[in-house]
Amino acid sequence: MAVYTDISEGDLKHFLQQYDVGELTSYKGIAEGVENSNFLLHTTRDPLILTLYEKRVEKNDLPFFLGLMQHLSARGLSCPLPLPRRDGELLGELSGRPAALISFLEGMWLRKPEARHCREVGKALAQMHLAGEGFSIERPNALSLDGWRTLWAKAADRADEVEGGLQEEISSELDFLGRHWPNDLPAGVIHADLFQDNVFFLGDGLSGLIDFYFACNDLLAYDVSICLNAWCFEKDGAYNVTKGKALLEGYQSVRPLSDEELAALPVLARGSALRFFLTRLYDWLTTPAGALVVKKDPLEYLRKLRFHRQVGSVAEYGVAA
Amino acid sequence: MAVYTDISEGDLKHFLQQYDVGELTSYKGIAEGVENSNFLLHTTRDPLILTLYEKRVEKNDLPFFLGLMQHLSARGLSCPLPLPRRDGELLGELSGRPAALISFLEGMWLRKPEARHCREVGKALAQMHLAGEGFSIERPNALSLDGWRTLWAKAADRADEVEGGLQEEISSELDFLGRHWPNDLPAGVIHADLFQDNVFFLGDGLSGLIDFYFACNDLLAYDVSICLNAWCFEKDGAYNVTKGKALLEGYQSVRPLSDEELAALPVLARGSALRFFLTRLYDWLTTPAGALVVKKDPLEYLRKLRFHRQVGSVAEYGVAA
Repeated sequence: MAVYTDISEGDLKHFLQQYDVGELTSYKGIAEGVENSNFLLHTTRDPLILTLYEKRVEKNDLPFFLGLMQHLSARGLSCPLPLPRRDGELLGELSGRPAALISFLEGMWLRKPEARHCREVGKALAQMHLAGEGFSIERPNALSLDGWRTLWAKAADRADEVEGGLQEEISSELDFLGRHWPNDLPAGVIHADLFQDNVFFLGDGLSGLIDFYFACNDLLAYDVSICLNAWCFEKDGAYNVTKGKALLEGYQSVRPLSDEELAALPVLARGSALRFFLTRLYDWLTTPAGALVVKKDPLEYLRKLRFHRQVGSVAEYGVAA
Repeated sequence: MAVYTDISEGDLKHFLQQYDVGELTSYKGIAEGVENSNFLLHTTRDPLILTLYEKRVEKNDLPFFLGLMQHLSARGLSCPLPLPRRDGELLGELSGRPAALISFLEGMWLRKPEARHCREVGKALAQMHLAGEGFSIERPNALSLDGWRTLWAKAADRADEVEGGLQEEISSELDFLGRHWPNDLPAGVIHADLFQDNVFFLGDGLSGLIDFYFACNDLLAYDVSICLNAWCFEKDGAYNVTKGKALLEGYQSVRPLSDEELAALPVLARGSALRFFLTRLYDWLTTPAGALVVKKDPLEYLRKLRFHRQVGSVAEYGVAA
């Protein structure tokens, strides 16, 4: 939860004059998102989200993120839509930060998702993968093999503080993934962070996907493996095969996975578990004690990584190979 | 900023079934308030605030706070209104906390108020003092002289860590206030915390007062002195007599202050400056480094206290005695 940058009513009014959005009636900082400052605005028309991009987001990446939301929305995916200013630009500046106004998506993220929700998530992920086709900007995944090695180089020395033996285990995992990472699977725009808090539901239906600030170009099946990690484990660390089956069936009802993609799932899932393990480990070791962000436990992802390492066949994820 | 307690969609739906408020379409934790967890709800009808009362709030005080909002609202003051459940109760329970649903008040609090806003605040404070007449529940002010002494007893030993000489200065201030505190001025229900973030404006007009969780029975002019401290000093520590004049004129246009109340203002303002100094000092010395709350600087109120100590006549506040 975080609001890093406060904004004054005068600066905000000046900013809003560049848009055609009605009169502001209220704005409140919201306690969601860890990378940016977000405000929920009420106006005499529709509610809006105002996002101020903080330092962890590369300003050069913003045209990719904002353009992608426009591209996906135009192709029928339900996601927030950046509003153009009167001069056509999607990006402005407020309180010294790059800032964008984005449509408000009704719906709630689920603290306790069930298998039927996992099915909807699988469907929506596949819809996003199809809707992403033809998007003209490219953004390589900074958090794939090379990025993991860079993160690991910064954290390896202190890894054994978190758990004894980690230094050796993770080094050999990186070696393994370097040797076995697939490079000939279908690729495209992936969400890369489709956790519970980035999927909204209204009633029983999925109402939309949000937070495209890790989106990039990578293997589509890698995105599926991220969702398996994010949605299909229970709090006690056990893989829930009913949820996995539902998520994979949902995905394949929209975009069937090839035999090669299915066969690669265990390796991809080891990679995505390692990716979240490493960023959490790095944050764990470097976040100052007084920071406003709640640190997430890296060991949750170490346990998931170990699960995937002992998977013998993709049938164990809930799908027939 | 704070959301101390998260809520699951299932618990929330169950909670909302006890009310007649339409269908929930979204809920987001908001980064305002330091005592409680607040969520902004959208429904198929009006937006609402859901407040979960955290441990710092005495559960026994909640009927006073919620009843007061109803009482003030019924007498025409613009403030949030607690919604009754279908069974008539104002208070429920959610995620193991006492919880209330409260109407959403449009408007924005001002980061940079001007004298004309101070005039509106003065008027609204006096309107609240009149509207509070006849409220049947009483709540003594836990943060008056006795409360200050209790706080000071816990912080005095370490006060010189914050500034050398503080221990002696504050002890003698408490002695002075004990000898000169007025006890025969008009009393009633006071807000006791009417800072900028608790007053909403829409356009140029004041749209309402919020956050009655420090409200209590005490001297009405003491509440005025709190507003002088909260609204009429500049960031550099200087008292702004134009703002003070506007605030006092606004107040007196609705409820004239007696000669005795005016004469007591410097002593009351020393007391209210000391009150905020002491709670900030206590929080400063006791809040753990990793807490999610931004610590406020106690020295801001020490400087205000010193200003009031050298005031020779209430004319210096901007009003003719």
